[in-house]
Amino acid sequence: MTDLPNFRPLSASNVAEWAIEADVVIAGYGIAGVCAAIEAARAGAEVVVLERTSGWGGAAALAGGFIYLGGGTPLQRALGFEDSAQNMATFMMAALGPGADRAKIEDYCAGSVDHYQWLVDCGVPFKEEFWGEPGWEPPHDEGLMYSGGENAAPFNAIATPAPRGHLPQMQNKRTGERGGGYMLMKPLVETAEKLGIRAEYDIRLQRLIVDGDRVVGVEAKRYGQTISVRARKGVVLATGSFAYNNEMVETYAPRLIGRPGAAIEEHDGQAIRVAQALGADVAHMDATEVAFFCDPQLMARGILVNGRGQRYVPEDTYPGRIGQLTLIQQDNQAFLIIDEAAYEEGMITETSTPFFRTPPKWVCESVAELEAEIGLPELALQSTVETYNLHAKERRDPLLGKKPEWVRPVGTPIAAFDLRGFTAGFTLGGLRTDLDSHVLHVSGDPIPGLFAAGRCTSGVCAGGYASGTSLGDGSFYGRRAGTAAALGK
Amino acid sequence: MTDLPNFRPLSASNVAEWAIEADVVIAGYGIAGVCAAIEAARAGAEVVVLERTSGWGGAAALAGGFIYLGGGTPLQRALGFEDSAQNMATFMMAALGPGADRAKIEDYCAGSVDHYQWLVDCGVPFKEEFWGEPGWEPPHDEGLMYSGGENAAPFNAIATPAPRGHLPQMQNKRTGERGGGYMLMKPLVETAEKLGIRAEYDIRLQRLIVDGDRVVGVEAKRYGQTISVRARKGVVLATGSFAYNNEMVETYAPRLIGRPGAAIEEHDGQAIRVAQALGADVAHMDATEVAFFCDPQLMARGILVNGRGQRYVPEDTYPGRIGQLTLIQQDNQAFLIIDEAAYEEGMITETSTPFFRTPPKWVCESVAELEAEIGLPELALQSTVETYNLHAKERRDPLLGKKPEWVRPVGTPIAAFDLRGFTAGFTLGGLRTDLDSHVLHVSGDPIPGLFAAGRCTSGVCAGGYASGTSLGDGSFYGRRAGTAAALGK
Repeated sequence: MTDLPNFRPLSASNVAEWAIEADVVIAGYGIAGVCAAIEAARAGAEVVVLERTSGWGGAAALAGGFIYLGGGTPLQRALGFEDSAQNMATFMMAALGPGADRAKIEDYCAGSVDHYQWLVDCGVPFKEEFWGEPGWEPPHDEGLMYSGGENAAPFNAIATPAPRGHLPQMQNKRTGERGGGYMLMKPLVETAEKLGIRAEYDIRLQRLIVDGDRVVGVEAKRYGQTISVRARKGVVLATGSFAYNNEMVETYAPRLIGRPGAAIEEHDGQAIRVAQALGADVAHMDATEVAFFCDPQLMARGILVNGRGQRYVPEDTYPGRIGQLTLIQQDNQAFLIIDEAAYEEGMITETSTPFFRTPPKWVCESVAELEAEIGLPELALQSTVETYNLHAKERRDPLLGKKPEWVRPVGTPIAAFDLRGFTAGFTLGGLRTDLDSHVLHVSGDPIPGLFAAGRCTSGVCAGGYASGTSLGDGSFYGRRAGTAAALGK
Repeated sequence: MTDLPNFRPLSASNVAEWAIEADVVIAGYGIAGVCAAIEAARAGAEVVVLERTSGWGGAAALAGGFIYLGGGTPLQRALGFEDSAQNMATFMMAALGPGADRAKIEDYCAGSVDHYQWLVDCGVPFKEEFWGEPGWEPPHDEGLMYSGGENAAPFNAIATPAPRGHLPQMQNKRTGERGGGYMLMKPLVETAEKLGIRAEYDIRLQRLIVDGDRVVGVEAKRYGQTISVRARKGVVLATGSFAYNNEMVETYAPRLIGRPGAAIEEHDGQAIRVAQALGADVAHMDATEVAFFCDPQLMARGILVNGRGQRYVPEDTYPGRIGQLTLIQQDNQAFLIIDEAAYEEGMITETSTPFFRTPPKWVCESVAELEAEIGLPELALQSTVETYNLHAKERRDPLLGKKPEWVRPVGTPIAAFDLRGFTAGFTLGGLRTDLDSHVLHVSGDPIPGLFAAGRCTSGVCAGGYASGTSLGDGSFYGRRAGTAAALGK
């Protein structure tokens, strides 16, 4: 029992000495933390950011860098795309549920154009160039891309398609030196530094300090020493997801057991635990982003089948949606079936995602032969290809709605990629917060003095996902947290 | 804000008067509550049960009555079935995950034969008769049945099939007067009454009363009056699921929005909330039992297809598994395809489930015609039937493993049942407890004085379900809660 962590809050009356004091204390120097710091400082608060590692950045600085913005941002308009807050909300409610927080999504969409401007004013660069190919990210430094399946079935029939993946302009994208996430974080951290924000590194959140019902600080560890940090006005939790806390993953999001990805090992759920110990509510703890290790350029040109040889997703949609549907609805079993001509075309370097390239496992002269090689029952794959080809001759896909430009009969020679178990992901569930980023108690009211944003909270995504929503709601509600915490409410 | 509930614990120092006092205070007089009461009384404790309604029973008394037991119970052995605790655990780990609690399942299986005897000793009657047909429940008063797909693919290849759905002998089953759940609850309540247990009705749990970290009572409402109930040794929470708390369903298990079923309206999640307010952990809050409104006798004789006309489940498995796979993996879209001969055979009264009988929506002379009537793309259903029939001629189902006895080519005339949205269910997630039914804090250690069992806890089911596991773990861990609470640990 002595090895168990103790997340229970400490009473301020037991604090002998405050090692650090500030108006607003922020735990975590990633996207939510830096945005909270900027807004709290601008509201006149003295701010200190406690970061567990020895530098700013968090998962954000290592991320691709998409920020999900829309409703008619200057970038969208400059590139000829119409969008409105309502259209954006319609898409998000359809794609990010079931159970998506309507109030939060409508609020997020209504503030999206302003938020874009705020980022630009902080020095975040967006290049006026659109990338329209299927993919995880643009291959160069293009600034705008579809990042959630907005232009694919079924969502293209639910809301007017508009690209909303806004990408900070990268340097040396191909060498991987400075990705979009870094180019987002760097100007924000510089903005924070100009505002005089104090950052303390190598300090790890342990638990909250309370005075009655109110949070008044945090207990933290610095080089093995326990210290107390006083927050005169508010504490903002921004330490990221629980993707690397095995016990929490097993308890809340077991489909992700053994496959954390696109998160950093510091994502240990600590912020969620210390707030739960105070009676904080959580939401959608089972929700996960799911990456799928296959090049979208190849997927769009082939057909994806499950472990029974059946199609299940329009292959030209957002690859993260393919990942979710594969992991959750197809028991993580998938094969990509593609003919030689489509494969050759899909391998053109300018549009492909090199990282996701693996060779096909089987190459055959006929579908029947491929079916047998994969180990599928007789006719299972042949009937799928026959049905697909019947309609593909007319460039139609009545089964799943793949767009005509990608629909073409599957011929021979034919190959299959073995994509079973080819997923990884990070958790989307976390603390339940209101529109001012107050952490909500299970009774429904805010816990005084406690705020949170980023992936330690449940944001705009309940079950589904779109690339950019994590940096999106992390930055948007990080700002709200900073503003509200500075008010000391 | 004044309408919000207040789940925050009350300090005992603020209690002016204890209206009721006992060693062990149990909230909820369903299956977990009555078993806790019996064991606490037998351990020498003075026990009071607080029940929100005006009578004992809870959801249990209205349930079909299956209790999931195995490992070689006298009933299993008398009816010629071999089983072991290990074989039972192997099945449960495969069928009830991902993320199932291995320690709890192994503990539950190891104690299952003893638990059977305990129930018999309390006067619960089990008739020595096996019912071997697909179905939700036996049509008469048979005592044993497969209730989780143990004898169907894929589980029949993972563990040796053994029926474990133990059903208390019913009276007047067909008239619905006294179902199995009632026949389970009645002798248990009589046992409790003989032990001198005090039951207080029309009392509703409001929040917990604490002395420091220890739970020492509950605040409750009786006819609009707030009263305090003192628990000298321990409080046992046993008030059921959160299936009828819309906000909690939306936050934790949104696939169930608008479709609560097989639970009672008193299942409002109150026990979960008051414990969360103390920092209690929860687990698998997204997990749900899912009922599917179709007669298993018809399903086994037909083929079930999803909204794309594809098969997805062996039709002869546990119908609750069909329900889960339909709701979670097929977006709640299903059609049952059945030919005239199979339909006629399936409608024989002795084996069918009358309640689930609805007429087919479409009847056609050919599969092509039926496919068009349903609105499926050309070849979508025809190719499914062709593939199925190719193997069915040899009584094989290599795609999904339906047992040979149910495999027969689908002929004409042919009909389809429209089963879209034909699901309902109750929640399986709840408080995280240890093997002694202590409620665990998010720090991992027990909350002193607080115990829980039944559907307000996360029991043996993480994602999957088998009929009888709710009354099973509710009774098993209800007993543990009573024993541990009486010890006052």
